[in-house]
Amino acid sequence: MTDIQKRSVLVIGAGSVGAIAALNLEVGGLASVTVALRSNYNVVKEQGYTIESCDHGSLKGFRPSVVRNSIPDIVAENHPPYDYIVLCTKSVPDVGPTLIDLVKPALPKDNTHTTLVLLQNGLNIEKTFLATHPDTVVLSGVSLIGSAEPSPGYIVQNEPDRLLIGAFPHPSIPSEKASAKAQEFVTLYSAGGKTDCKHSPNVLHDRWRKLVYNACLNPICAITGVDSGRIRLADGALDGLVRPAMEEIVAAAKAVANVELEEDVVEKVINTDPLESRAKPSMQQDLEKGNFIEFENLLGEPLREGKFAGVSMPTLEVLYQIAKAIQWRTQVAKGMIQLPGQ
Amino acid sequence: MTDIQKRSVLVIGAGSVGAIAALNLEVGGLASVTVALRSNYNVVKEQGYTIESCDHGSLKGFRPSVVRNSIPDIVAENHPPYDYIVLCTKSVPDVGPTLIDLVKPALPKDNTHTTLVLLQNGLNIEKTFLATHPDTVVLSGVSLIGSAEPSPGYIVQNEPDRLLIGAFPHPSIPSEKASAKAQEFVTLYSAGGKTDCKHSPNVLHDRWRKLVYNACLNPICAITGVDSGRIRLADGALDGLVRPAMEEIVAAAKAVANVELEEDVVEKVINTDPLESRAKPSMQQDLEKGNFIEFENLLGEPLREGKFAGVSMPTLEVLYQIAKAIQWRTQVAKGMIQLPGQ
Repeated sequence: MTDIQKRSVLVIGAGSVGAIAALNLEVGGLASVTVALRSNYNVVKEQGYTIESCDHGSLKGFRPSVVRNSIPDIVAENHPPYDYIVLCTKSVPDVGPTLIDLVKPALPKDNTHTTLVLLQNGLNIEKTFLATHPDTVVLSGVSLIGSAEPSPGYIVQNEPDRLLIGAFPHPSIPSEKASAKAQEFVTLYSAGGKTDCKHSPNVLHDRWRKLVYNACLNPICAITGVDSGRIRLADGALDGLVRPAMEEIVAAAKAVANVELEEDVVEKVINTDPLESRAKPSMQQDLEKGNFIEFENLLGEPLREGKFAGVSMPTLEVLYQIAKAIQWRTQVAKGMIQLPGQ
Repeated sequence: MTDIQKRSVLVIGAGSVGAIAALNLEVGGLASVTVALRSNYNVVKEQGYTIESCDHGSLKGFRPSVVRNSIPDIVAENHPPYDYIVLCTKSVPDVGPTLIDLVKPALPKDNTHTTLVLLQNGLNIEKTFLATHPDTVVLSGVSLIGSAEPSPGYIVQNEPDRLLIGAFPHPSIPSEKASAKAQEFVTLYSAGGKTDCKHSPNVLHDRWRKLVYNACLNPICAITGVDSGRIRLADGALDGLVRPAMEEIVAAAKAVANVELEEDVVEKVINTDPLESRAKPSMQQDLEKGNFIEFENLLGEPLREGKFAGVSMPTLEVLYQIAKAIQWRTQVAKGMIQLPGQ
């Protein structure tokens, strides 16, 4: 493609995952990236990103083509629709404005042009979009990256970006059309040759597979304050917490979505992060920063679906209830809930 | 009793609970109290306790008769045996030296004179003492006090001291003898008239009754970081966590010890602390201070006994496993566990 043919991509919420996505898309040369930022806008606008990446090396001053502090209102700004909108924000439907409201100015309800890519974790994240945007192709991005943003605009990526892209099953759009979009996005993302991005049509498999980590180690590490390496050393924590939780997800994957995860998935996921990496799952990072945690899509949805399908999930049930109380505490701390006598 | 007849009482570990015990015993005039302190020794030795108490008012410079920084070695010091030893330290058998080792210098194995009073929470705290000190009367003290030690030697007691004293069932000492000791201790403790101390022979009832709070709200508040007042306001926390946990204890009390708790015990215990008191259960206080938590006797023992008796306890199981991982994290933080690569 020549420059004029570059695909236009809007990345919404470019923190530790989105910044690397923007970088991969830009270095491939097939996409022109606009990032819409909030908390790290000032830093990135002024200095660009500072990135230390196992895939890309050290970069100072990386700026996507356009850096904005708001979601483009394509009608008011008379802006052509983006080819892709990549949503990388945290998904906290229990507290925030919905992602639908967030994306709306850049994605009209009757959109047929733009493909929406949900680079977010958890289950059922696409459901509301399919309902409100019946003519929009929605892609699933399951990212297996290890990265963090220790301070605004400073991205440390210590585990390779492995991204699985596939189209969510859609009630009315032919799967060939959606699949073609998925494959094109993989082409854009992979063109720089720095990353492992694959078309993976079995979205439900990939999402349940990742939940073995995300519904389990994520809240367990957040709640105990023990990182994913140390939890393997902590007396009894694997047998008492981690394995039971993961087995519940494995059972739910089968019962809910007929997804058969590989037999040794639990041990493989336990050993995902190197023992010495001291890797803190995103929920643990968020909690330490006083941020909201993404527990509803990561933990609440698989729990509800699993229980509805008749799976016994006592470990995840308690983890969920604790996460919910912690989220409430954060809402109080942020002044979003007024208590009597305050 | 005249001064010469005063009972000698050694209080070991006089923090928020033990300091008030020492105060009640001293103001009654029937006991002469020695306190053996550690972390707050210097402050108390130099300035005495500073106490703000709903029972006693404001006191500055309260000093028990003797203030020590070690457990008296009664043989080496040629000290007559104490009439009572009141043990008020935290009970963390999973990490610390055992309480047996702690008390040993003041309580020889063949002791028949000294009565040991365990002013500690939880289940089965007496078991090892009954085994190692078969001739010693051991009393249970279930304290329903609300007090804290925000800084060393500074005691804030915001809820009345209600203390239930009874003898633990003993394999060889006649219950009349043990019961007489319990009644005498109540006399010493109550003589000042400032407190509500009662002889309560049904020790198992009192301990299981208190576990409805201590095995449930204590770890739930510690783990979620939400105090016992706010947890009643937190969306879903009562139905999702607190009530299920408490019902498990109620069922275990019945199955393990044939203790029938009153029908509305769960709601009564939930409403123990005033909504606006922002009362933090001891485990939450300990965690915030970076201290060990007393989860084995408060949570582990009732859980093990309940499960052994066939009670389903899924909520307490997960809370226990989380508490265990948190305790491990504290051990690592204190340098008591060396991890590979450190």
